[in-house]
Amino acid sequence: MTDEHEVIAAAERARAASYALAVATRAQKDAALEAMAVALGSHEESILAANADDIRRAEAGGTPSNIIDRLRLTPERLEAMAQGLRDVAGLPDPVGEVVRGGTLANGLELRQVRVPFGVVGMIYEARPNVTADAAGICLKSGNAVLLRGSSSARSSNRAIVEALREAVVTAGLEADVVQLVPGDSHESVKVLMRARGLVDVLIPRGGAGLIRSVVEESTVPVIETGVGNCHVYVDAGADLDKALAIVLNAKTHRTSVCNAAESLLVHESVAAEFVPRVVAALQEGGVTIHGDAAFQAHDGVVEVTEDDDAREYLSLDISARVVPSLEAAIDHIRRYSSQHSDAIVTDDLGAARRFVAAVDSAAVLVNASTRFTDGGEFGFGAEIGISTQKLHARGPMGLPEMTSTKYVVTGDGHIR
Amino acid sequence: MTDEHEVIAAAERARAASYALAVATRAQKDAALEAMAVALGSHEESILAANADDIRRAEAGGTPSNIIDRLRLTPERLEAMAQGLRDVAGLPDPVGEVVRGGTLANGLELRQVRVPFGVVGMIYEARPNVTADAAGICLKSGNAVLLRGSSSARSSNRAIVEALREAVVTAGLEADVVQLVPGDSHESVKVLMRARGLVDVLIPRGGAGLIRSVVEESTVPVIETGVGNCHVYVDAGADLDKALAIVLNAKTHRTSVCNAAESLLVHESVAAEFVPRVVAALQEGGVTIHGDAAFQAHDGVVEVTEDDDAREYLSLDISARVVPSLEAAIDHIRRYSSQHSDAIVTDDLGAARRFVAAVDSAAVLVNASTRFTDGGEFGFGAEIGISTQKLHARGPMGLPEMTSTKYVVTGDGHIR
Repeated sequence: MTDEHEVIAAAERARAASYALAVATRAQKDAALEAMAVALGSHEESILAANADDIRRAEAGGTPSNIIDRLRLTPERLEAMAQGLRDVAGLPDPVGEVVRGGTLANGLELRQVRVPFGVVGMIYEARPNVTADAAGICLKSGNAVLLRGSSSARSSNRAIVEALREAVVTAGLEADVVQLVPGDSHESVKVLMRARGLVDVLIPRGGAGLIRSVVEESTVPVIETGVGNCHVYVDAGADLDKALAIVLNAKTHRTSVCNAAESLLVHESVAAEFVPRVVAALQEGGVTIHGDAAFQAHDGVVEVTEDDDAREYLSLDISARVVPSLEAAIDHIRRYSSQHSDAIVTDDLGAARRFVAAVDSAAVLVNASTRFTDGGEFGFGAEIGISTQKLHARGPMGLPEMTSTKYVVTGDGHIR
Repeated sequence: MTDEHEVIAAAERARAASYALAVATRAQKDAALEAMAVALGSHEESILAANADDIRRAEAGGTPSNIIDRLRLTPERLEAMAQGLRDVAGLPDPVGEVVRGGTLANGLELRQVRVPFGVVGMIYEARPNVTADAAGICLKSGNAVLLRGSSSARSSNRAIVEALREAVVTAGLEADVVQLVPGDSHESVKVLMRARGLVDVLIPRGGAGLIRSVVEESTVPVIETGVGNCHVYVDAGADLDKALAIVLNAKTHRTSVCNAAESLLVHESVAAEFVPRVVAALQEGGVTIHGDAAFQAHDGVVEVTEDDDAREYLSLDISARVVPSLEAAIDHIRRYSSQHSDAIVTDDLGAARRFVAAVDSAAVLVNASTRFTDGGEFGFGAEIGISTQKLHARGPMGLPEMTSTKYVVTGDGHIR
């Protein structure tokens, strides 16, 4: 019960603080972002000490080393967080942008203008750098933010948010535009998910389980992010050298990210030549191939199951099948893709056009690695996540995706 | 249980049919819309007979006459439905529109392109004309539609959908792009609301209770429509003749619609002159005023309660208060508005700018009646509803709002 009251009170403070932030000028917001960057440096000692507490607790609890690595802050990582805030200051302000407008036949002037959502809730996992990134992106887009990180990062997040709130105040904005959600219990997340009317949108970032539970339980509108079972399809018309480079890059460049490839499909007309090459190259890269009969003809390939087809490994594993046609590849992707990023490798224009039209994913790539689906790569400058839903935003979300719009209608006593 | 299986099976057929519809050309879709318009005419006899059944059942059940009027179809209303379908055929196809695009520094070509959602579920109340309107808008935007009208209109809706499905097939599209949700029970609506993954978006249209229950219970993403507690604020700087015309128009032009005014706020500096005039004019128009002390000084004004402040009357009633300042008006609107449409009447530019910036509603109007918030008035040509949420679409929704986007990324063997 205490949690519930505290979470609602925090959301009410965020709502109240959001009014002034929504009409703050770009200059005010950029000054706040610069002050936030400076504060991360001047609070380095307390933030790193708090982070050391979190690391000790995680190690004592037997947390795996890759998770501890995500949790760990260093002076270099803090500096990168500060630079991220300065980068956001350098981006255009989305608020106030006129999306479309004109004058109606009766003389009414109509403008559709970007406005902040109001209050954004972020629910995320261990990385404490998300705390500063999300605070910066929300502030620049005029939104008050309620941050709910992993309890494993609670000391780090508290220290970071304390520094950021001090900075925001020195820049003349209200501290409550950046808040941690009070309470560590799962109850506090539940309250956040039911705070429709007080919280305008929830963005969960993390594993599939976290995202599914938020989507299922929330009455606040949700932007679903990040689960990626991404496919590379090597078409009959593929340049096989390019195909090999793209498969390797998509699978092995970075395995723990949502735009890494998890499934390989090869057209049967190029399988005899391509399968041996791609098996050798992937295995040399340390990848375990979960393959069908054609792949299992090679040593070390394990049998693929339907679970593998649907799986986001986030590791050096890939499912692999030979398909009889482009249409069979499309059918397979329709069935198993998480609709994040799916690629075709082909020099056949007709095949590329058919694949692009038929595959309904946030990003459809032709002769390019799935790793390019990224706000930075797309030139957005900052990214709050990658939406895999169809409503509101789809694909990498930058500052404009963190806004809504309103219509401003100006007349001279107009009536119907 | 039968309902559940049947609803899921219908959604699966809609999904399968959506693939071909998503890549249909504008010419195919417009031919289907024309065939649908023709079919409403050629099936006039069976549709009107079915409607007569619904009317008989409603009358026997003691349904109020205003609801029966909404339910009733006539040759003229059928002709208007057919014309609506032809109007949609005349609108540009939103699918395939390039929203933004360019070439990245590394030579990758990036395009953000409009694509259909896939499968749209419509849940709506008695008006059978919505059946044809929604089918037409969904078809033109490339979406298969699952229609769940009121059970009071079930015979009419069945006859209309039968005609539309025949027409769609003659135009070479699959009949299952337009389906009624099987089953009359509330259970079938529940199944629809939990069909995440099979249904891409749900749009409820109707009363506040219907919309709230869909928003609360659905795991499928929802676009909330239509509840309107709209305000007119008469500022210190108002031209009082224009203010009087706008208040009267917003309240009395049509009372049963979501963009009708339900609340009046008057700045105290003009109250002495304006309140007597507006009371007389509203009362002459048959309006019951629920007013504060300043309004109650006039005969026939009843006492306003906080319930009145929050209420969408949809009748010849209005709540009315005098406020001490522009900021007090903004505070009142923030507390009670449903964020649909709120208007200021003023000739003071500073007051207009402050009101537009601070009032966070789908439409903010200056010197114009709230009745202008409408897809037809805005020049959209067709409207599926008026969104009062901030995610995806806000305000009147035309064809572009019935689409998502995807990124198409084209390279030449690009890897990171």
